[in-house]
Amino acid sequence: MTRIVILGGGFAGLFAAKSLVKNLGKSVEVELVSDQNFFVFQPLLPEVAAGSITAAHAISSLRGLLKHVKTRKARVHSIDFVSKTVTVFQGVQKRPTQVPYDQLVIALGQSTDLSRTPGLSEHALAMKTLSDASKLRAHIIEKLEHADITQLPEVKREALTFCVVGGGFSGVETVGEIKELIDRSLKYYPSIDPSEVQVILLEFAESILSELPPRLRCYATEQLKQRGIEVRTSTGITSATGTAITTTNGDVIGTRTIVATIGNAPSCVVRRLGIKTERGKIVVDRSLAVVGVKDAWALGDCAHVPLVDAATAPQEFAPPTAQFAVREARVVADNIHRKLGGKQPIPFSYKSKGAMASLGSKRGVAEVMGLTLTGFPAWLLWRAFYLSFLPGASTRLKVFLNWTLDGLMPRSIVQDIAPDSGQTRVVHYRAGDRIFEAGNRADGFYTIISGRVEVRMKDAKSGDLTSREIAAGGHFGERLILGESRRTGTVRALENTEVLVMDREEFLRLASAFPAFKDYFRAYFKDTYDIGWTPPAQLQ
Amino acid sequence: MTRIVILGGGFAGLFAAKSLVKNLGKSVEVELVSDQNFFVFQPLLPEVAAGSITAAHAISSLRGLLKHVKTRKARVHSIDFVSKTVTVFQGVQKRPTQVPYDQLVIALGQSTDLSRTPGLSEHALAMKTLSDASKLRAHIIEKLEHADITQLPEVKREALTFCVVGGGFSGVETVGEIKELIDRSLKYYPSIDPSEVQVILLEFAESILSELPPRLRCYATEQLKQRGIEVRTSTGITSATGTAITTTNGDVIGTRTIVATIGNAPSCVVRRLGIKTERGKIVVDRSLAVVGVKDAWALGDCAHVPLVDAATAPQEFAPPTAQFAVREARVVADNIHRKLGGKQPIPFSYKSKGAMASLGSKRGVAEVMGLTLTGFPAWLLWRAFYLSFLPGASTRLKVFLNWTLDGLMPRSIVQDIAPDSGQTRVVHYRAGDRIFEAGNRADGFYTIISGRVEVRMKDAKSGDLTSREIAAGGHFGERLILGESRRTGTVRALENTEVLVMDREEFLRLASAFPAFKDYFRAYFKDTYDIGWTPPAQLQ
Repeated sequence: MTRIVILGGGFAGLFAAKSLVKNLGKSVEVELVSDQNFFVFQPLLPEVAAGSITAAHAISSLRGLLKHVKTRKARVHSIDFVSKTVTVFQGVQKRPTQVPYDQLVIALGQSTDLSRTPGLSEHALAMKTLSDASKLRAHIIEKLEHADITQLPEVKREALTFCVVGGGFSGVETVGEIKELIDRSLKYYPSIDPSEVQVILLEFAESILSELPPRLRCYATEQLKQRGIEVRTSTGITSATGTAITTTNGDVIGTRTIVATIGNAPSCVVRRLGIKTERGKIVVDRSLAVVGVKDAWALGDCAHVPLVDAATAPQEFAPPTAQFAVREARVVADNIHRKLGGKQPIPFSYKSKGAMASLGSKRGVAEVMGLTLTGFPAWLLWRAFYLSFLPGASTRLKVFLNWTLDGLMPRSIVQDIAPDSGQTRVVHYRAGDRIFEAGNRADGFYTIISGRVEVRMKDAKSGDLTSREIAAGGHFGERLILGESRRTGTVRALENTEVLVMDREEFLRLASAFPAFKDYFRAYFKDTYDIGWTPPAQLQ
Repeated sequence: MTRIVILGGGFAGLFAAKSLVKNLGKSVEVELVSDQNFFVFQPLLPEVAAGSITAAHAISSLRGLLKHVKTRKARVHSIDFVSKTVTVFQGVQKRPTQVPYDQLVIALGQSTDLSRTPGLSEHALAMKTLSDASKLRAHIIEKLEHADITQLPEVKREALTFCVVGGGFSGVETVGEIKELIDRSLKYYPSIDPSEVQVILLEFAESILSELPPRLRCYATEQLKQRGIEVRTSTGITSATGTAITTTNGDVIGTRTIVATIGNAPSCVVRRLGIKTERGKIVVDRSLAVVGVKDAWALGDCAHVPLVDAATAPQEFAPPTAQFAVREARVVADNIHRKLGGKQPIPFSYKSKGAMASLGSKRGVAEVMGLTLTGFPAWLLWRAFYLSFLPGASTRLKVFLNWTLDGLMPRSIVQDIAPDSGQTRVVHYRAGDRIFEAGNRADGFYTIISGRVEVRMKDAKSGDLTSREIAAGGHFGERLILGESRRTGTVRALENTEVLVMDREEFLRLASAFPAFKDYFRAYFKDTYDIGWTPPAQLQ
């Protein structure tokens, strides 16, 4: 039996699978490989981040949506286009598994790459996956909790400044929803005055929502401003740390919340494929067949889909939207059907039916079939459209119930996800930033990747102040191996500095298990502080 | 104004705060310190694990529940009973914050300690917190996904064997709910036959639910057995690994899911307090005042609460249940009120009104005011009781809606939480276990904490097989620093072995930032394999 394997479970992959089953029924074997066992309804992620619907309701089980399709939860590692096999890692992901195919559909989407702006990938929250949305919500509530109880005005100001980078659909909807979540939660935080909250949208271009006509862009900007959101256009980000961003205008904005909705990049599997790409996207012909290999098709955000013949000028390509992905999916399914029947494929062509955005707080903008709408009607249209588009009747009912309840009840402020911990992470500091000070909790071990810091210590006996500098490759905070639970010194960045922080428990676990670590630190304490250190029992 | 500080936001802390506000109104300042900003309705956690209600509906915002109470999301570090201050860490938790009190209420609950059984704390899932319940659900679905696609019979058998350790209320409700989740999900997993699934409840005592009368215990056991759950009584656990448990009867059960509902232990803050404890619990007098210090009270699971006067024999103490915690909370509030008014405190006394357990699948057992109930009536009573007990009308409505929908709709099988990754973790192997084999994905760096392993390698040039042993303090898997992406050797445990595994990305990050690491491995590769290694650009 002919095996059709689909890689990816987003709009493109899901709808390709559905159309294939519809076209070909049980005469072929359709298998879908996805690293998550659910489909994420991306347009609802900002609402998950704001808690107007729960995470469970923005997703649907792929197995539930796809009857007669074998679903394989696995990570795609590589594709051999000659032997026609996909190598995946599944389960505990140690052993590779080979998945053979006759026809292959590549719908792997895009990933995010923020690495061009120093500090951004380490300090920004994304809005691409379900877990991003849940984390953002927990993060915002964490900041409100902290702002409500801190005694330090600077910390309070940073905690109450929320920045969203990127003024496209995702950025605009996210900033609108964040503002609504905060506005509706403030009654629970008696020590926060609404005037202390700053929500900022930053866009590098001259205007937000550049896909929409100028009138709607203006309306959207005005709406956001009226709701107290600061919209900064012609403003990019040059660097980010855990407590600030620096803009292309040279401004430094103190903030502990950076949401980045920019930086689309090729999926890392696509980068490894060794086939022809253009701007990181797989080159396909007008029938959506991958150029240069046999029996493979690509669509959705990972493909560079031409909308006109190669000879036509100007060249035009499909935008990375769900609307196009769903149409492309039907064409791929048709063309596979035709190919198996010995017929000629048909070319893909489609004209956008419009675009719309929710601005939060029951306002929206929409341009549909040439008609433009703003305000409440546009917002209602947005909700109705996405409700009708949701896969599965039970999900539709649940989202509808949630939306209705959200209108009637206070927004929940439970922070049901704890911040990540226990991982080594890269942290950026600007020149002058204090990394920690004497008396702080000894929270981890720091290695300098780039930059330079100064450590000031007071000698416990003589009371003398000493200071020393540490450069890239050096480390500090290692005294927790000596049993230190509070910092004895204060460390400041002398220039822009990047460090690798290893969590306290993790550092002690490694120091305790790995003798090379202990040997190194025994020598280090002797040389640097003239401390004769013998590892205690639990470190031996 | 008199400041009353409550530590802990469980049943004891929440109800103490409520009663204090009721008794004393705004004449005092009540502050509640909790490391989560929500109250968890513990009895519903097994239902969260089984997906019959969503995580968000088993919790309520403390700020929403507690009007006129200052809520501080912070971790308690220590208490100074002389200066009457609590030291907490809040926000990013670097700087200590001092919280002064006039009257202190300690309601810190219990923690779990599984360390007495080798491997159990590393390989078992708990059922104590909201995140435990969400993780367990994701874990079970992960195992079903894996079992559905694996080609290896042994892996499939282990993936489909689910063990719950401990036959108390929590264990019984958990095993019942797990079984229901699996039964209702199997229709989505066409390659799994129901006969391949094994769900086992293990209890060290002679019977499960020892708190209930014998007739109800028998009924519960029979019910679980009828639903295909294996109940093994008089059976403890002597060790656990990632793929098996060994029982006190010497049986080895191959399993990748161990849920431990045993091992109650004192909270780590209570252990640090330096006050009188008995079996790890704070010693209080009959008025719930802490013995030996001034103006401090303790209640709930962290306190050793006498039910009769010290002179009376036999001595009797309050069991660690929500029922008792709520009554104790009222007495503490009354006694603080009395003390502030210069009156004598009253002693705590209470007699249990009964107990009940849900067995899943619409069956339960209950003993209330001397009456016993079984089957559907008991299950209905259980639901009605907990629904009426839930704090907040909106939570009650949501849970009721969820329960109703759950009866009408298929159970969701979305796995919305990814397994933990990126942390160093301790893993146990039994003698003979394969740790990894040649061709596997190079997933991490291993340091041996105890035990001994054998590494077999095939020389790439000569094809000769070599083998060497590595003992505690040694390491393997370090070749990923050389750029290895697949394992070149096979490693087996020669005896029971405990290793520290550091995730691939984390190891490479550390190796790249910390020169001592690179120096050590450069020498190591030279000495062990005679490989002259120069760190590549990204590691320099």
